[in-house]
Order: sequence, then C-alpha cells, then structure tokens
Amino acid sequence: MKKLINDPDAVVRESVEGFGMAHPDLVTVHHDPTYIVRADGAQEGKVGVISGGGSGHEPMHGGFVGRGMLDAACPGEVFTSPTPDQMLAATEAVDGGAGVLHIVKNYTGDVMNFEMAAEMAENDDVEVQSVVIDDDVAVQDSLYTAGRRGVGGTVLAEKICGAAADAGHSLDEVADLCRQVNDNVRSMGMALTSCVTPSSGEPTFDLDEDEMEIGIGIHGEPGRERKSIRPVDEVVEMLMEPVLDDLGTKEGDRILLFVNSMGGTPLIELYIAYRKAHEIAEQHGLTVARNLVGPYITSLEMAGMSVTVLRLTDQMIDLWDAPVHTPALRWGV
Amino acid sequence: MKKLINDPDAVVRESVEGFGMAHPDLVTVHHDPTYIVRADGAQEGKVGVISGGGSGHEPMHGGFVGRGMLDAACPGEVFTSPTPDQMLAATEAVDGGAGVLHIVKNYTGDVMNFEMAAEMAENDDVEVQSVVIDDDVAVQDSLYTAGRRGVGGTVLAEKICGAAADAGHSLDEVADLCRQVNDNVRSMGMALTSCVTPSSGEPTFDLDEDEMEIGIGIHGEPGRERKSIRPVDEVVEMLMEPVLDDLGTKEGDRILLFVNSMGGTPLIELYIAYRKAHEIAEQHGLTVARNLVGPYITSLEMAGMSVTVLRLTDQMIDLWDAPVHTPALRWGV
Repeated sequence: MKKLINDPDAVVRESVEGFGMAHPDLVTVHHDPTYIVRADGAQEGKVGVISGGGSGHEPMHGGFVGRGMLDAACPGEVFTSPTPDQMLAATEAVDGGAGVLHIVKNYTGDVMNFEMAAEMAENDDVEVQSVVIDDDVAVQDSLYTAGRRGVGGTVLAEKICGAAADAGHSLDEVADLCRQVNDNVRSMGMALTSCVTPSSGEPTFDLDEDEMEIGIGIHGEPGRERKSIRPVDEVVEMLMEPVLDDLGTKEGDRILLFVNSMGGTPLIELYIAYRKAHEIAEQHGLTVARNLVGPYITSLEMAGMSVTVLRLTDQMIDLWDAPVHTPALRWGV
Repeated sequence: MKKLINDPDAVVRESVEGFGMAHPDLVTVHHDPTYIVRADGAQEGKVGVISGGGSGHEPMHGGFVGRGMLDAACPGEVFTSPTPDQMLAATEAVDGGAGVLHIVKNYTGDVMNFEMAAEMAENDDVEVQSVVIDDDVAVQDSLYTAGRRGVGGTVLAEKICGAAADAGHSLDEVADLCRQVNDNVRSMGMALTSCVTPSSGEPTFDLDEDEMEIGIGIHGEPGRERKSIRPVDEVVEMLMEPVLDDLGTKEGDRILLFVNSMGGTPLIELYIAYRKAHEIAEQHGLTVARNLVGPYITSLEMAGMSVTVLRLTDQMIDLWDAPVHTPALRWGV
C-alpha cells in the first residue's frame, strides 16, 4: 500500500486535525465525538445545515463547512458511517433556534444513524428535518444501499441549501428546496482503477489493465458493467446519456453540469471529459448555465470520474451564485 | 495506460478546449499558436503577467489566468516547453502599454524559449522583463535544468506578482517583487508512484512497491535518494528540514506554508502531511501566517507531495490577500 499516512487507524483523526490547523478562520474541529463546525458557531435564527458520511470522499463534507454552505460535518472512519452521537453533537452545535436540516446520502448506515440522531435531537427540543439524496442512476440497489446511491448531487444540494439557509429561509423551505434539488439531479460514475482503504491496504476490487467499470459507486461498489477501456468521449456518452434520459431533460432546460474526479484522475483529463459532456448537453438542446469541474466527491485515490446534471430553476441559480466561503468552495467573499 | 483521453496526440488541445468551454467568463483560448488569455484582454496601463511551461502540471498555469493573477499562460505539450511564438502571441495579447513580466520556471527549454520570445516582443516595442524561478532545493542540476528547478514557488510568485500588477505597480517593481519572492521561497517534493505521459504510455520511472523517491522533480526527474516508504510524518521532516535550512529561517519569521499534491495523492492524506509540516514550522519558531493545501502544481497522476515555504513580508501578505478570480484560485470576488 503506497499512502502518505502514519498509522492506518489514525488516518481520519490526523487528517481532520490537519484540516483544522489549516483553516482555523473557517472551521473548528471537535473530537470524541468528531465533528467539524463553522468557526463562528450557531447562527441565531438561521437554519443549521449539516451533513456527514464516511471519510475518503474529501473535500466532501468537511471541506464544505464554513459560511454559505454547511454549518457542520460529521466524518466517519473511511467508507464507514459516522455515529449518531457525532451527528447529535453537530446538530446541537449549529442549532440557532430555527431548526437543523440533515442532508443524508442514501447509504443504509448513514440513513439509520441520521434517523437516530434526529430523534435524539428532537428529544432535546431541536427541530430536525432530513432529506436523503439518491441521485446515482447507475444501479437500483447496491452493496450499502437500498434504492439509489447518493453521490455528486449532494455537493450541489449542500451549496444551494446552505445559501437558502443563509438567506433566511425557514426549515420547511430549506428542506423542500433540498428535495427539489434531489428530484432534479442525476449522476453516474466510472472507474479506471480501484481505491485502497488504509485499513485493508488492498484494492477494493480488481480491474484488468484494459478494463473500466461503468456505474461505479464512490466506495468501489459494483456498477452496471465492466468493459474494455474506450476513448473518453465514448465514456462520457456512456455516463451522460443515462443521466439525461433518467432526468428527462427537455430542449431549453438550463442545467448545472458537474464533472467530478474520483481522486486519481488529473485535471488535464477531466477537462477533456468536460468538453464532451458540454457538447452532449448542447446537442440535447440544453443550456449549460453553470458548471463545476474538479475533485469534489472522491473515492480516495481512485482514477475515474462522474458526471452530475442538475436541472436549474431561477431560484437555484441565485442560490448557487450566492457567496460561499469554505475550504473547498469559495466565491463572492 | 489507464487514462481518460481520446488521442494521445490531442490531449493538450482537447483539454485546453474543454477548459475554455468551462470558464468563458474568465479566459479565452487561442489556437495556432496556443495560449490562454484573460477574457477581458489587455488592461490599459497595467503590467501584463504571463507564464507558461509544459502541460501536465494542471491547474498550473492556465488555471491561474483571470483577474489578479496571470493575464495569459502558454501550455506546451505534456512536459515539453511551449514555443517562442506562443509566448510572443501571449505577450502581445496582454500588453496594455506598461510592459509584460515573464515568470519562467527554470527548465532549459522554457528559459531559452522565453528569452527568444522576449527579444521578439522587444523588437515589436513591447517592454519585457523575465524572472526565473528556481526554488527546488532537492538537487543542483537535473535532467532538464542547469541549476535548481522551478516548482511550487511559481504558484506563489504568480499570485503575488499578479496582485502587484493589479495594484498599479510598474514593470520594474513587479519584476523586483518576483525576484524577492524567488529569493525567499524554497520547495522540495517526493513521489510514491511515477507519472505516465500520454505519448509514451509507460511510467517515466520505476519505483518498487515499498519505495519512494525523495526530491523528485515535477516531470519525474530523479531526486536525492530512493528509500523505503516511511510514515508520512518522517517524510514531511525529510522535506521540511532541507527547505527551512536552505531558506535560513529565523525564529519569529512569518511564512506561507504550501503543501501540494503531485496529483494522485488525495486530500485526506495531504492534510495529514499539512499537520506535520505546520508542527515542524512552529517548532522552528515560525508563524504560519498563510497557507495553501491542495493540488496546484502537479505531475499528471503521480502520487506524492511537495512542501513550499515562503518567508513573508507585509507587502507579500497584502498582495496574497488581494482579490483573485481564476478557475483554480479565487477569493475576494
């Protein structure tokens, strides 16, 4: 295993510590239980927005904590759900009296633990609403999921809902908006290589030197099919067509096009993929009104990519454009 | 070779095209010769700041074109110097009458071609000054370099000099400042795995499964030594100590600490490295006044990292903090 780590069991703790040391103006890191919260704490009268999940997808979610996006994030061990006590502590830390939204990726452990945390928080008189993101069109059920998996759409939901909370919307409104984003977003990914978790030290799956996996999950869960590596333009077609088909886009729709690296795929390749994805969107009569290109929801060092398409409303565009100041996404400030 | 590309010979062209499609508000891409220029063109009375070099180090340099950093960048083929006609076209495109600064990484081809371009531009009555960046303490001469190589310090020089040009400083002042940055910045890198260039399709060098290369160059050029992989805290010591020693830091110095991924090393590992680098800096009595953590000067998909330390002045801090709006670095706008 070739990794820049110390003790495999200390990876998350040490990484989160370093993250806190690098961004003390934006975030504060708590341990036992572990959560990352905006440095200026709960905002009186503002809906709190939190998320969390297994580590190994950085910058998601911790990198999106700050102003105008997440108020807190709960990092689990690598590819392992955080525990309800982490989520409860984060929920209470960001409650400014207007309630807290939990944005939950659809993995069985995450959903179960966020449900428990929400119940505990409500017992402590914190109002909570939860929205489950399940935007991955690749497969119906999967290794850790009943129904579709939550992937790249989560990044977009966190930005848009964080901005809505900042703008003073109520918990009901922010939760409705989050459901609306989830209803209008679809994703699909692929991998050229496996990730290696620090604890196992071995590739999560095996791919031959000439193979790729289409429809891969962000923990290396199996996708739709394995096939020979094809030119990237064909690969992008294999991702974009099911995404657009499932979303049911119509000519004239405005979209946010998000081309994401799984971690090991460098920007020089990602922009070749973006070029084709943008072309396909335009061939479908869509207007690429906004875009995002880079490694935002990764799978450790996995080489591969995903595409996410969000059908935009005027409100979503305004909220996407609103100022954000986090370690991983920043504009307007 | 596992890459998301079409034709190996079209990688740079297609990637730059996609880059232009993703960021039309910030950049315009020209072909034949290829250069990337800020979308709003030459700024009357402002010093133009340009750079360039082989591709494969993205986001450097194209990702730093926009407002408050580079006015243009010239991407060569992968790991190959751009040609003088690219540099000349970029120079003339950004000349607002106050002259143009060439920020040149110290590689033989880059230095020679930028010299030729500067001569041609001066024949066309564009005043040019050139500053060569040579911040890599690992080795004295190297595969493509007489003297030290230019690496991570280049990112910092481009931000600081871009801000100085924006603030209305003269060409002499911006060039002096660039030399001052170069005098006060040192870097060193290491690799766990080789990069693979699209044209060769093979690893540039071989490393055993338990080996790492300390002092690697950004094109996979040999470093100081190969040794068994060690815990990342020890690896960071092997990089930080020569950097601080060569820079001759004194207790109380304020620094910018830049921990960079070579491409394949994910953020979860990079923040563990940052944690140790920050600790070492503090043990030396230094104040980490600013930092940068992420993949900013990469070597395709190489796994590995580099550390860069810049000794800061008040002026450099102000210029670092000044607004910047580029695809890869953005704040204050």
